[in-house]
Amino acid sequence: MSTVSPVGPANGYRRIATEEAFVPPELHRMYRELVASGSVDDPGFNSLIGYYLGHPSERARNVSERLQDIGERRVADMDSAGIDMQILSLTSPGVQVLKRDAAVAMARLANDQVAEAVRRYPKRFAALAAVAPQNPPEAAKELERAVTKLGLKGVIINSHTLGEYLDDPKFSPIFEAATALKVPVYLHPNTPPKKMIEPFLESGLDGALYGFAVETGLHALRLIVKGVFDRYPDLTVILGHLGEALPFWLFRLDYMHRGTVSSGRYDFLKPLKKKVSDYLRDNFYYTTSGMASPPAITFTQSVIGMDRVMYAMDYPYQYVHDEVRVQDALALSAADKKAFFQTTAERVFKV
Amino acid sequence: MSTVSPVGPANGYRRIATEEAFVPPELHRMYRELVASGSVDDPGFNSLIGYYLGHPSERARNVSERLQDIGERRVADMDSAGIDMQILSLTSPGVQVLKRDAAVAMARLANDQVAEAVRRYPKRFAALAAVAPQNPPEAAKELERAVTKLGLKGVIINSHTLGEYLDDPKFSPIFEAATALKVPVYLHPNTPPKKMIEPFLESGLDGALYGFAVETGLHALRLIVKGVFDRYPDLTVILGHLGEALPFWLFRLDYMHRGTVSSGRYDFLKPLKKKVSDYLRDNFYYTTSGMASPPAITFTQSVIGMDRVMYAMDYPYQYVHDEVRVQDALALSAADKKAFFQTTAERVFKV
Repeated sequence: MSTVSPVGPANGYRRIATEEAFVPPELHRMYRELVASGSVDDPGFNSLIGYYLGHPSERARNVSERLQDIGERRVADMDSAGIDMQILSLTSPGVQVLKRDAAVAMARLANDQVAEAVRRYPKRFAALAAVAPQNPPEAAKELERAVTKLGLKGVIINSHTLGEYLDDPKFSPIFEAATALKVPVYLHPNTPPKKMIEPFLESGLDGALYGFAVETGLHALRLIVKGVFDRYPDLTVILGHLGEALPFWLFRLDYMHRGTVSSGRYDFLKPLKKKVSDYLRDNFYYTTSGMASPPAITFTQSVIGMDRVMYAMDYPYQYVHDEVRVQDALALSAADKKAFFQTTAERVFKV
Repeated sequence: MSTVSPVGPANGYRRIATEEAFVPPELHRMYRELVASGSVDDPGFNSLIGYYLGHPSERARNVSERLQDIGERRVADMDSAGIDMQILSLTSPGVQVLKRDAAVAMARLANDQVAEAVRRYPKRFAALAAVAPQNPPEAAKELERAVTKLGLKGVIINSHTLGEYLDDPKFSPIFEAATALKVPVYLHPNTPPKKMIEPFLESGLDGALYGFAVETGLHALRLIVKGVFDRYPDLTVILGHLGEALPFWLFRLDYMHRGTVSSGRYDFLKPLKKKVSDYLRDNFYYTTSGMASPPAITFTQSVIGMDRVMYAMDYPYQYVHDEVRVQDALALSAADKKAFFQTTAERVFKV
């Protein structure tokens, strides 16, 4: 195994990057068929995946190639950027656009494949499980298998599943399994669903530019206001991109939620045990994927808590060495810096 | 005229609240008819206005009554909260849900009515014009009349007009008028349009809890990425709620916009003259409506610029005396505090 060459001077911490994407070549091929046939009724999928699979630009080709490598090339990239470990997860939208049985099978394949990469590079990789929310009981079973048999460290959900959100009680088996296994749920962006995407798509704002943030912020808030964390108080959810801006909104979320619930505006919005901001502080962790922005990182640490913000790169979508240096240079104590890059991730993912 | 009783000790500044809503009783009655008949094809309108007009809760009744008063009761509320001046604007969605001719007529009525209130209380009120984007040439004419004949100080647009956004070139007359008259456009929230609202509405997140922010942030970004500020470099847009969180996203917006445009992913996304964050710093002002949150205010000031963040209350939706005290206590120099409460608003609105 090659030694990590630190980007800066030796720092006294390992850099664990916590939102790093891969795709099995088998799923990549399946995406290609789905885009070509137009058989997935999800304009965001066709726009986003169509772009990465078919566009002649260097960016699209680069991402497409690197996503499929969880071996030597990736480790070389990590060495070059100074990343000690990646927490691997199946790229968005994962298996969540496939038909039910194909999704279940592909999640197993992805988990077996990534577990094999972890076995080959145990010091460089850990991984989250993919599951098929299309079949909640099977998703729960697969999560259990992935954690107990394959040694995976949690589960990634790429936001909505063809327009469905995890606050629907039918998805409870997934939260039951995650809390029973004591592993986190990484709620990763997806493009907004068909019933929401049009004003984003017609202005090119459907993807990582803005639609991702809105879709995932909405999903996280749906979990909170629909009472998921009152039903599963030990549930841990991780958000990338510094919480999709929800840390910015804490004050307004509390004010407007209180007013909305106390006036009984919506029958289905019941009072919660805690304030919206309490859940965002107590049940969520945040990573810096795509947000190598010191003011935004410092702000999030200050309103959420130093021990809940972790480093992430967002490889291969955002593979920029300078962004590691910028975060190395954050104005933090040595202990807080080590927590940010290493020890919080070690605790949350048990690596 | 009654003297303002300052909330705290005498502070050396006037408090100008810059996003303060009213509704003519005539429009209020028309809303009631529209909600009752179900004739507006906008689920957000029916949910939001149906709530404020018809709900028995104290919050709904309070807001509904206070919105219709731009006389003694409002001035008494301002005295009691220590507000020296309100910049009045027609409440969301304004005339933007009416049929074209009715919208044009109602905008005129609202402007005449609010101009009369300003004449009665010239030290306590200034106002923005309402216009009907449904008829862009008439909207431009009405804006000119409102500014040159009635002395109004800018124009409010309550985000989408039945699903249409101002980046559509057909709305250019509005920007031409605003820049020719050198007045700002206040881009105020609305509920998301029909083609976007479903996942928000089914979870009670369609209004001020989250949908407002997303809809208005989207609208502002559409203006930027579609090149409106390259066509109108002197255009000034004001965003409430501390910019609907766009200040949080500056880094990612720049990164993803660069990647998207340079790879040519969307034919209609042309290179811009500046970075997305440049427009957000050069063409936008920000108010604190609904966001009496010192960390979020300080963050916005730090990434956008001290001279572009202004105080707002969001009366009568958020009429909370303590929120004035909280902002009086912001850790700012005397000059910056005066700019925040008074002089930036005086410059932007020419009051």
